[in-house]
Amino acid sequence: MSAGRCKASIDFSPKPKIQTPLVSRDTASLITKRFLRNIKPSYGSSGEMRRFVTEKARRVLSSYLLSSSRSQPSSSSLLPPVALYSTAAAMASKLNPPVTVETLNPKVLKCEYAVRGKIVTHAQRLQEELQTQPGSHPFDEILYCNIGNPQSLGQQPITFFREVLALADHPTLLDKSETAALFSSDSIQRAWEILDGIPGRATGAYSHSQGVKGLRDAIAAGIAARDGFPSNADDIFLTDGASPAVHMMMQLLLRTEKDGILCPIPQYPLYSASIALHGGSLVPYYLDEATGWGLETSELKKQLEEARSKGTTVRALVIINPGNPTGQVLAEENQRQIVEFCKNEGLVLLADEVYQENIYVDDKSFNSFKKIARSMGYGEEDLAVVSFQSVSKGYYGECGKRGGYMEITGFSADVREQIYKVASVNLCSNISGQILASLVMNPPKVGDESYESYMAEKDGILESLARRAKALEDAFNSMEGVTCNRAEGAMYLFPRIHLPRKAIDAATATNNAPDAFYCQRLLEATGIVVVPGSGFGQVPGTWHFRCTILPQEDKIPAIISRFKAFHESFMSEFSN
Amino acid sequence: MSAGRCKASIDFSPKPKIQTPLVSRDTASLITKRFLRNIKPSYGSSGEMRRFVTEKARRVLSSYLLSSSRSQPSSSSLLPPVALYSTAAAMASKLNPPVTVETLNPKVLKCEYAVRGKIVTHAQRLQEELQTQPGSHPFDEILYCNIGNPQSLGQQPITFFREVLALADHPTLLDKSETAALFSSDSIQRAWEILDGIPGRATGAYSHSQGVKGLRDAIAAGIAARDGFPSNADDIFLTDGASPAVHMMMQLLLRTEKDGILCPIPQYPLYSASIALHGGSLVPYYLDEATGWGLETSELKKQLEEARSKGTTVRALVIINPGNPTGQVLAEENQRQIVEFCKNEGLVLLADEVYQENIYVDDKSFNSFKKIARSMGYGEEDLAVVSFQSVSKGYYGECGKRGGYMEITGFSADVREQIYKVASVNLCSNISGQILASLVMNPPKVGDESYESYMAEKDGILESLARRAKALEDAFNSMEGVTCNRAEGAMYLFPRIHLPRKAIDAATATNNAPDAFYCQRLLEATGIVVVPGSGFGQVPGTWHFRCTILPQEDKIPAIISRFKAFHESFMSEFSN
Repeated sequence: MSAGRCKASIDFSPKPKIQTPLVSRDTASLITKRFLRNIKPSYGSSGEMRRFVTEKARRVLSSYLLSSSRSQPSSSSLLPPVALYSTAAAMASKLNPPVTVETLNPKVLKCEYAVRGKIVTHAQRLQEELQTQPGSHPFDEILYCNIGNPQSLGQQPITFFREVLALADHPTLLDKSETAALFSSDSIQRAWEILDGIPGRATGAYSHSQGVKGLRDAIAAGIAARDGFPSNADDIFLTDGASPAVHMMMQLLLRTEKDGILCPIPQYPLYSASIALHGGSLVPYYLDEATGWGLETSELKKQLEEARSKGTTVRALVIINPGNPTGQVLAEENQRQIVEFCKNEGLVLLADEVYQENIYVDDKSFNSFKKIARSMGYGEEDLAVVSFQSVSKGYYGECGKRGGYMEITGFSADVREQIYKVASVNLCSNISGQILASLVMNPPKVGDESYESYMAEKDGILESLARRAKALEDAFNSMEGVTCNRAEGAMYLFPRIHLPRKAIDAATATNNAPDAFYCQRLLEATGIVVVPGSGFGQVPGTWHFRCTILPQEDKIPAIISRFKAFHESFMSEFSN
Repeated sequence: MSAGRCKASIDFSPKPKIQTPLVSRDTASLITKRFLRNIKPSYGSSGEMRRFVTEKARRVLSSYLLSSSRSQPSSSSLLPPVALYSTAAAMASKLNPPVTVETLNPKVLKCEYAVRGKIVTHAQRLQEELQTQPGSHPFDEILYCNIGNPQSLGQQPITFFREVLALADHPTLLDKSETAALFSSDSIQRAWEILDGIPGRATGAYSHSQGVKGLRDAIAAGIAARDGFPSNADDIFLTDGASPAVHMMMQLLLRTEKDGILCPIPQYPLYSASIALHGGSLVPYYLDEATGWGLETSELKKQLEEARSKGTTVRALVIINPGNPTGQVLAEENQRQIVEFCKNEGLVLLADEVYQENIYVDDKSFNSFKKIARSMGYGEEDLAVVSFQSVSKGYYGECGKRGGYMEITGFSADVREQIYKVASVNLCSNISGQILASLVMNPPKVGDESYESYMAEKDGILESLARRAKALEDAFNSMEGVTCNRAEGAMYLFPRIHLPRKAIDAATATNNAPDAFYCQRLLEATGIVVVPGSGFGQVPGTWHFRCTILPQEDKIPAIISRFKAFHESFMSEFSN
């Protein structure tokens, strides 16, 4: 044990201010007996036994010491702390540190987030090794295909957006003559408009808790233009990306583990993590891989009823459209069925629509769930719909700016008041992210100086993403034992890998899920980071991984050939 | 009732896909009887009675309808839904909406945040009235002295910081020759350094979950320079302001309401709100107004023991230094006692140090708690200290940028892993806020081109704040029945008002806390917004308000004279 650790609860040093807790001989003996009596016979190895005894001793002792340090024992037979330590705590590896994993909120312990999980930590280690020992691995760089983070892989930001942000960050530029040579005229005009909408033009001030009213007006106008149905600035809550908005809704809806949220499987693990952190239950519904990750309301109904029969109050349905990690885009008719289902069952529809700009096939288009509901004649009183949007995705990919919003409709005034209160506790989201959210919902228009360059940048990115998606999809489908659905949208492919028995056995032998084993071997052989399907959920006995389509286009051929070579070698190594 | 609302659970329209739940005649009768039986005789007015019956009917019906929509009743005697509605639900104003306040997370309902509470909503309404009907109130503008939001009241941002932010937002500026004319040479150099520390110079990419490593290095260097003790970039978690960092620690430490956090009273209500949201208990300790908001460890000890005797596991101690809302700065000796106390009691020391730059008196200075602990010879193994810092306060006051960090020390590797995991779920904080946090901890140095103008801006702001604090403190102390402690630091004064009996009675008669009543009358008479002491906590029977020192200096004389005139009139109106 470490003497330093020991000092955390009892101090042996002669510093004058420190109280040394004193414990009677009888008490120390009692403590020792008490924990020895509690040893369960079911612990197999002597190591387990030792750990158990140690832990038990630690707990009994520490709880005793906490109380003994508060009240002096009346007995005159006292042991100095060292003596106590030698009699009872000798078997404890350390005394009570103030915070241990065992004493943390169990909801935190339960939460998992595979997108930045073990495989990524492993990749970061390899990256450091590449830097300190070039040539130490059979690749030159780590390719992070684990996360939808376009600019980390070389995607350039949209110029107009960044011009406006720079001007809003440093408004004195607007008074300088040189500025006209450096910025487009419409970015200057837009910056003025935005500043005029911010009280005192203070981009460094906390805004209204929902976000700057002028920016919410712009976003509502953008939503209305997109959907053809009105949108209200009072329904917009600007947030630091979509994740905090999802957390806010989970915090609001989940009371105990008897409250459930219907989530797709596979799902984006923000949902499972957020539900775990807020102490609710994830009620899974399966997307049908055979029909291109189809979403059947019969499956929703079945899972809802099963959950209800177990006493779960299902409060909301999460739909991710376009899909993450699955990349499908819902058909309009399917969306109508989902709206009808939520309306009939009294479920809040939590619509993750952050990939609304990422559609890569001609036969699909994005429709917001609010638009679908309104087009069916359903209004505020019929059902509650929350739409999440983010500046991190789309063609803009501004992940680092942490901008986003949720549009909430169908909630009563007193419920909205509670949402507002929770938003207020966090004061407001960052103003640059707020400005960016207003820009992505109101980009340059025909006639604006930036319009053509803006459209060229936007189309360039989206067309390239579509080509990359198709190239990767074809490549995966060409590999032995791999099947990959069409990448209709979002930023990911979620191929299924039919692993040979021997690979599954090898994974099991090393305490790995088979897909995690595959992904780890891929990383070690190629430097490519993908996330095992087990991090998203999948039909038991099937194995997948999620791979982003985000590496720059000129790198795609090399990635494909490295991936294919690895896969062939892996399959031949473990062939039955 | 609204037909629209009714449609939320039962659909009467002829759309083909909708199942109409069918209910037997017996069941409908049973439902009616059941809720009539439950009517309590204690409801006073007929309105209350009607609401109760309505609510009860709604609940009984809705729970029945949810189950009946899943399984067809076996009885052949069936009523169509309209008949059911007319028999049982006629008294219900609406059928089950999916989310009501009663079905929200009770932790959310419990949470309060006075800084943006009722008084502010009232002020916003008055502001709108001033705009739509100029002259409708006896003042021209609303003066928001409720919140530490310097730039909303005209404080200008530090030029160097904004230059760097603009360049980082739009890095192509760095390649343009005109840029040298618009930006200081050291801001250009700093922007390059920052960009070089960000992988791919991608300010639009998600960073490491703790924040960009290069920026954390800069912050750690700044902390080390401030304290004279080393700081490690791995201990820094960059966050969107200090609030999310506080939430993160509360989420980690609080398991049930049996876990408590020692918090000062008066306190900044983020703490009470966060503890409520995370389901723990606030264990109060009182600051002593008579000794300048003194903090006695005997009081800490007393409250800790009282909480423990009630079965509460106290996990951490919150110290706000400089104090919010109380403005005191702790003496070094007092800090040493607090460190000793936390170490002996095994408490995490949560040190809110966001006002570390805001010290206005010569006889006090800021010492971080980590520095104090290290200077006592205590290291990582002795106690856990978390220091919260923010870009929103100090002389920079960049609230809208939502930047901040926490420095965590004294946690074991496995606990840190859990903190990292929670940070990962939210991906990262906004990069502009991260950059700004690195700048405030590493401002221009002697010899840098910006140094002199930077120092002039900084000193100008801090000296002005000190003058404003003193002027307001003197003004409050000159008012009848008001006493105000010295404003040693932070951005607030927390004067005590000795209200006449008649004022207290008038407040009680209108269901107001007496200090809330005073603040409301102040607002209506002067347009000045301050927060009632009851939002922060105070010794029962005493009344206070929190007023920021942030209005621009040229407005202070007018504010003081308006405040005084109001106070005199209020006191004479309610004099005994």
